[in-house]
Amino acid sequence: MTELREDGFLGGRLRIAQPAQGYRAGADAVMLAAACPAQAGESVLELGCGAGVALLCLGARVPGLRLFGLELQEDYAALARRSAAANGVAAEILQGDLARPPAALRALSFDHVIANPPYFTAGTVAPDAGRGRARHEDTPLETWIAAGLRRLRTGGRLTLIQRAERLGAILSALSPAAGAVTILPVAAREGREAGRIILSARKGARAPLRLLSPFVMHANPSHSGDGEDLTVAAQAVLREGAALSPAGPDFR
Amino acid sequence: MTELREDGFLGGRLRIAQPAQGYRAGADAVMLAAACPAQAGESVLELGCGAGVALLCLGARVPGLRLFGLELQEDYAALARRSAAANGVAAEILQGDLARPPAALRALSFDHVIANPPYFTAGTVAPDAGRGRARHEDTPLETWIAAGLRRLRTGGRLTLIQRAERLGAILSALSPAAGAVTILPVAAREGREAGRIILSARKGARAPLRLLSPFVMHANPSHSGDGEDLTVAAQAVLREGAALSPAGPDFR
Repeated sequence: MTELREDGFLGGRLRIAQPAQGYRAGADAVMLAAACPAQAGESVLELGCGAGVALLCLGARVPGLRLFGLELQEDYAALARRSAAANGVAAEILQGDLARPPAALRALSFDHVIANPPYFTAGTVAPDAGRGRARHEDTPLETWIAAGLRRLRTGGRLTLIQRAERLGAILSALSPAAGAVTILPVAAREGREAGRIILSARKGARAPLRLLSPFVMHANPSHSGDGEDLTVAAQAVLREGAALSPAGPDFR
Repeated sequence: MTELREDGFLGGRLRIAQPAQGYRAGADAVMLAAACPAQAGESVLELGCGAGVALLCLGARVPGLRLFGLELQEDYAALARRSAAANGVAAEILQGDLARPPAALRALSFDHVIANPPYFTAGTVAPDAGRGRARHEDTPLETWIAAGLRRLRTGGRLTLIQRAERLGAILSALSPAAGAVTILPVAAREGREAGRIILSARKGARAPLRLLSPFVMHANPSHSGDGEDLTVAAQAVLREGAALSPAGPDFR
């Protein structure tokens, strides 16, 4: 990890350093943070927190959280620590493998676990090793989910963002340990199929699955030039730090 | 099954007798038929065809199909045969249990299998025995799906309509025998969560899952009086016999 670049998030409220060339968190991390219904006093663990974008967005939106991040790559963990301090967000970032978490973490259980697991399965070669690790799946998705469930208290909530096509694998990994699954499809544009899903589940719950109305990112019917065309809802989440709470109490 | 009533479907193009008091197929059966991408010359089996509404709607929309229905309850099977003849749709209706299909059926494989399995699990007592059987789950959903997959040729397509909350169970039952899963959420109104899903999968396929943009049934933001407020798309399917093909070649 050589050159760094500082990116603004939540309308510039957060400044977060990320590698200029490597993996860079973006809108998905912000969406994940917006979808986590944590409230003041609760504890949150992010698995694979990278440079800390989701964790810091969540901390910026909800004061009084106890935030923890676990990151495999020490250089990203160090970046996350630095950005947490620079942005005045208290967060404890641990270096370690989520498949074999450090003892300090195994001693804890959390009200919330959030994660944005890699979107691509192992095999494709990425130009940058750090980027490769963050984008590709050395650790299977099922392991992420199992690790998240283990770190949750009973009744605690796991919130994930992932490619929509992994829905079956996610539901299968959640069952039977978690229920009250809520799926928020995220579509680039109105009428398009979902590219992403934000999925939330509660450990030990038995409530039925809910499939929510999609969250739409862009307002124009197709991509048009360089102009930003976020929907009002996407602007609220990405620029103004709004919570993503489309469906009332069960999603929250 | 005592008193019968004749209902019109597809804008009156079909007249189908159903028990006045027992289980009566409605919009979901018509939606299921609209979502099946069968083409002239292909064979279609409906599991649990009841009084034949889905099968006859499909036959009315696509000429030249070889239609088969399997129905546990002989009185419903007899109704389906009678309505097929009355509406001039060629269909072979067999009486039997989908968990142990008749030998005549086991000898066949199909290009398409369609089903609208019961929405409620066993346990609730229905006032009418026939209605109870059609609405409640004596046969587990997993058995419906396994039976459907067994009767499909490799590459053949299973199309189901079911409550959205059963999504996890359906995906689990489809895997690993079928892929190319396409999920069409069906919402009562814009912005509401999906009450139903129409799910399609191809036997032996490995293509990734797709989560489509929802199909919306009603145009008004909330229920208002007795007036019918179907969306244009729902009118096309329910009244004009249009195909439900929101997503191009993979859904069809």
